[in-house]
Amino acid sequence: MKNYQIKPGNKIRLSQCDPDDTGSYEKNRQGKEKSKAVTKKLIDKLSELQERLYANSTRALLIVLQGMDTSGKDGTIKHVMSGVNPQGCKVVTFKTPSAEELGHDFLWRVHQKAPAKGQIGIFNRSHYEDVLITRVHGLLSDKVIKQRFNQIKEFEELLSESGTVILKFFLHISKDEQKNRLEERINNPQKRWKFSEADLEERKFWGNYIEAFETMMAATSIESAPWHIVPANHKWFRNLIIADHVVIALEEMKLKTPPPPAHINFDTLKIE
Amino acid sequence: MKNYQIKPGNKIRLSQCDPDDTGSYEKNRQGKEKSKAVTKKLIDKLSELQERLYANSTRALLIVLQGMDTSGKDGTIKHVMSGVNPQGCKVVTFKTPSAEELGHDFLWRVHQKAPAKGQIGIFNRSHYEDVLITRVHGLLSDKVIKQRFNQIKEFEELLSESGTVILKFFLHISKDEQKNRLEERINNPQKRWKFSEADLEERKFWGNYIEAFETMMAATSIESAPWHIVPANHKWFRNLIIADHVVIALEEMKLKTPPPPAHINFDTLKIE
Repeated sequence: MKNYQIKPGNKIRLSQCDPDDTGSYEKNRQGKEKSKAVTKKLIDKLSELQERLYANSTRALLIVLQGMDTSGKDGTIKHVMSGVNPQGCKVVTFKTPSAEELGHDFLWRVHQKAPAKGQIGIFNRSHYEDVLITRVHGLLSDKVIKQRFNQIKEFEELLSESGTVILKFFLHISKDEQKNRLEERINNPQKRWKFSEADLEERKFWGNYIEAFETMMAATSIESAPWHIVPANHKWFRNLIIADHVVIALEEMKLKTPPPPAHINFDTLKIE
Repeated sequence: MKNYQIKPGNKIRLSQCDPDDTGSYEKNRQGKEKSKAVTKKLIDKLSELQERLYANSTRALLIVLQGMDTSGKDGTIKHVMSGVNPQGCKVVTFKTPSAEELGHDFLWRVHQKAPAKGQIGIFNRSHYEDVLITRVHGLLSDKVIKQRFNQIKEFEELLSESGTVILKFFLHISKDEQKNRLEERINNPQKRWKFSEADLEERKFWGNYIEAFETMMAATSIESAPWHIVPANHKWFRNLIIADHVVIALEEMKLKTPPPPAHINFDTLKIE
């Protein structure tokens, strides 16, 4: 499948990335079932690797999920991360900042929620909202946004140099697919509670968001934490791609079963 | 199966509760497999109920796990809660208090970690450590311990009156079973990293811990948050009992799919 990883410094056009892509899997029932079977295996592997991450407690993994409304951030967490031991996995949902949070720099509340060693941390939305909504609605000047890009890079370098691997995913859906998903929420009485008028409002700024995402991803892809564009029109392919990236990231840590405490002589140990 | 729920004000003798109990399930392979199949169904149900808890965000569930070392607190979380969407489930492990935490009352750090509406919170050890270790090692006077019992009850009443259902489990293993489990950690090189000499030290105080648990559970069982003694020598039975209690607690909340936002006229809604 095509590699949608953004190299540091590279410009990027989302219009050149197909949100409908399903790699080598056919866009039919067979392709979907095949993809789901592979994802299942990856998730089992993920569970196993997470146990080792937790046992070692020397490294951490941070997964950042961004994307338009209805792009599937919640669904990704549900389908890829259910099965992981919740003791080693913390999901953080960033809401509108509180008055106290606004009294600090924009990374203050984010830093507090960075995953501890041994943990997988998942940011459902993140500090990137502070350079997206703010830009689209003209709440901050270009100069401040640019400054924030640099602050974000320095912040992520700090985490990375301290042992955290960072995976940043942009869930890429088409405007038509968003329409389908919003209509499903409207037409299915069981899903209406999820519907928010704000989603319709933000949809009007689709083009501006695309531009803001492109600029942001080009500016904040660093060697240790590049952005990945995930084709997300097909939920099953989105889950596969993300599970695959997570498994590879954990495998690359090359963690083993931790060694026994060196000062204990296990051969002479007696339990009364 | 026998009901090991402690009624408020009731004295309790752990020696009268069989840690080896497996209810109506035979203590053999058949019994184990049967029990596991039931547990699997309960866990599927739990996942579904947790979705509804999250969607409604009107109630919360707090699960408190206590028990001797090796009694299976981590194992319970892994086997009962893996499968739950981690977005709606937060596990808190309380470690030795930091200097900052010691500068406050003992419930200060605990209150901060209480689950928000919509969440399942799991305390792996809890504020109850502050009336157990402290009592066994004579770090606090009986008067202060008694005061803490009352403070705990008031604290839990507050949570309960604010919509949180509290389930408190004492994982009950025998002293022999602990010996088996410690020996397994010593003899299996893959498990030695889990071994801590402190566990052997605390084992010497087994009788004192039993007495401290008995006193504590009698003193802090309240109508809205009674203690449950879980026979835990057989891990599969322990998982079954806890999954069963959690499912019942969530079902008793009688949560439905949330209603759609009342001010929206869904029939005239158009998406451009």
